[in-house]
Amino acid sequence: MYNLINDVKKKNPLVLHYTNEVTINDCANITLALGASPLMSYSKEEVEEVVSIANAVVINIGTMNSSYLDLFIEAGKMANKYNKPVILDPVGVFATKTRKDFINRLLNEVKFQVIKGNSSEIKYIGGFDVRGKGVDSFDDEEDLLEIIKKIAIKLECVVASTGKIDIITDGKNTTKVHNGTQKLKSITGTGCMTASLIGSYLGCTNNILQAATMGVITMSLSGELADKEEIPIGSFKVKLMDNVYKLNEETIKKFGRVEM
Amino acid sequence: MYNLINDVKKKNPLVLHYTNEVTINDCANITLALGASPLMSYSKEEVEEVVSIANAVVINIGTMNSSYLDLFIEAGKMANKYNKPVILDPVGVFATKTRKDFINRLLNEVKFQVIKGNSSEIKYIGGFDVRGKGVDSFDDEEDLLEIIKKIAIKLECVVASTGKIDIITDGKNTTKVHNGTQKLKSITGTGCMTASLIGSYLGCTNNILQAATMGVITMSLSGELADKEEIPIGSFKVKLMDNVYKLNEETIKKFGRVEM
Amino acid sequence: MYNLINDVKKKNPLVLHYTNEVTINDCANITLALGASPLMSYSKEEVEEVVSIANAVVINIGTMNSSYLDLFIEAGKMANKYNKPVILDPVGVFATKTRKDFINRLLNEVKFQVIKGNSSEIKYIGGFDVRGKGVDSFDDEEDLLEIIKKIAIKLECVVASTGKIDIITDGKNTTKVHNGTQKLKSITGTGCMTASLIGSYLGCTNNILQAATMGVITMSLSGELADKEEIPIGSFKVKLMDNVYKLNEETIKKFGRVEM
Repeated sequence: MYNLINDVKKKNPLVLHYTNEVTINDCANITLALGASPLMSYSKEEVEEVVSIANAVVINIGTMNSSYLDLFIEAGKMANKYNKPVILDPVGVFATKTRKDFINRLLNEVKFQVIKGNSSEIKYIGGFDVRGKGVDSFDDEEDLLEIIKKIAIKLECVVASTGKIDIITDGKNTTKVHNGTQKLKSITGTGCMTASLIGSYLGCTNNILQAATMGVITMSLSGELADKEEIPIGSFKVKLMDNVYKLNEETIKKFGRVEM
Repeated sequence: MYNLINDVKKKNPLVLHYTNEVTINDCANITLALGASPLMSYSKEEVEEVVSIANAVVINIGTMNSSYLDLFIEAGKMANKYNKPVILDPVGVFATKTRKDFINRLLNEVKFQVIKGNSSEIKYIGGFDVRGKGVDSFDDEEDLLEIIKKIAIKLECVVASTGKIDIITDGKNTTKVHNGTQKLKSITGTGCMTASLIGSYLGCTNNILQAATMGVITMSLSGELADKEEIPIGSFKVKLMDNVYKLNEETIKKFGRVEM
Repeated sequence: MYNLINDVKKKNPLVLHYTNEVTINDCANITLALGASPLMSYSKEEVEEVVSIANAVVINIGTMNSSYLDLFIEAGKMANKYNKPVILDPVGVFATKTRKDFINRLLNEVKFQVIKGNSSEIKYIGGFDVRGKGVDSFDDEEDLLEIIKKIAIKLECVVASTGKIDIITDGKNTTKVHNGTQKLKSITGTGCMTASLIGSYLGCTNNILQAATMGVITMSLSGELADKEEIPIGSFKVKLMDNVYKLNEETIKKFGRVEM
């Protein structure tokens, strides 16, 4: 699986982003750092054209820009039409009813290959009535892994749930990533960038679980290796980008703590 | 007052931004660097919901995006409705009649707790006819401090006027910050980020004058401490973010030059 | 010609940008790094006002934001009306018919002083029917320099074509810049920033060819000098900004490889 990082550098997949204005530059640079090519578009006019040439599509609702909501739906539908893998990043979905309703609409109108969020976002989404499957709520006593697996089965996709331990699962097969550092939460955009990395890997393989796992470990391990000697966050962000650029199969083999 | 920096880290207030696309990422990261949480939204749909959960709201007109003008007005009104402190950053208000008219509208429809700008922006705004108080113009011969105090009284809020010496006043009580460096003008967004910092402190105290003072000194002192050995501006920006992250009560006590 | 860099620092020209959301912060900072002043606007209301006070205008179609297309056309027309030099950056014009059509419209409704793109973008644009001059296609066997010269004559402007060797020409007079590094393609926005630099120089001289050449060499040389010891791209980006800030006439004379 780890050799997928070489495939990204060889194939240079085009990762199309429909994303927020806060972290759009970081998403472009992390995609380049890994060896893929970013394309960002806010054009209704070219949505079908750009989706048709992309290798993967990322949809991120970070700022909930009113002008883009219908565009994001259209981009998702086009990704389905052209059989392009599409990743959802439901930023802050639990914060407002507006976000909840929009994610509900996205999930009902678009088939996602990967949904990536922190465990709170994932558990919240897991309760939605997606395509008539009913509303659920999850018992907080239940093991997080079991909850995430149920959600992956309900949503019929790979779920990448980030947190202290990252859980990536299609409901049957699961990987856990034990790398990471709290500091990844001290700068904006590390979640958004993880979706960009997953998109980069998805552009190189049909194994969705592996692509999602590689995206998560690329961020978690690069962050962990950057967090030395109480590095403050300006420097940490530079180092994180450096580490994603330098990351290779050997480093992942040596320092990766992945449980299959 | 300096212990407010500890309160931000403890309370982790949510600072909602309606801001420009140029410095939106910097504003998010500086908010995180201080220990608060940024939320950026360009959604008409969720404005009431996000204002109601925020601890402070920042409105910044930097790019005067036509799509957002009514949204910014609505956000300000909602902040008033929910008694959330709201900060105005009238970027380049003197540059065009369009900006002047929009700021005039904001000032007449929204009650701000803090208006932060450089001294040119503040003096320009001070002349507006806000809520029937008539148009003024200020005598350039007059002492800047006296002018800023008059403006604070007229606008019924705390005014934070940045420059060689930063003046923060409600018209009666005043603080002056003597820290800073010219280099803060050599990168974009230091003004915008100061408003984010003020918002972070405002989320932790009802003492508006202290919150505004703390926001200003956090930026001015972090910049001053970063400006060593003719540091060029790429490195300066990284160092500035590092310093805000590392700043604590002791450092402010030691190096802060605040006159009450 | 190299002394133009001093003129930018002395005159501090105002460079107005109508640009994409991905690299807008980088464009503002590179403009400041050189000693000019950036202004970014997405306002239909203030377009005439801001163009009239600007020293140069940059139009960049990077994200093809549907909300901005008419605004960009209007900004270009205003630049013509007020005799302000205007630069076009036709990002990814060959990628979609939507981009092609929009650039065609821009070229037919606005007179540009400089068109800056990589050689693929320039060759693609060169084939358009601009103001009734007919559709062309270029023989790939032909020398790139000859093709770029023909395009400059057809489009009646200075063309800055970036690549392994950068070619800047008005069709009669040509400069070639041999500086640069592949790494400039490993971060997003170096092309966009080059247009900002050209705009900064254009605000200081009527010699369009020299301004465009200076913009190109400022980026190519600053990048070359930053690319030492396999520097990874997070650090490279910081160093690039540092180098533009530090660049002076002496350094260009010493390390510049410009062929007139």
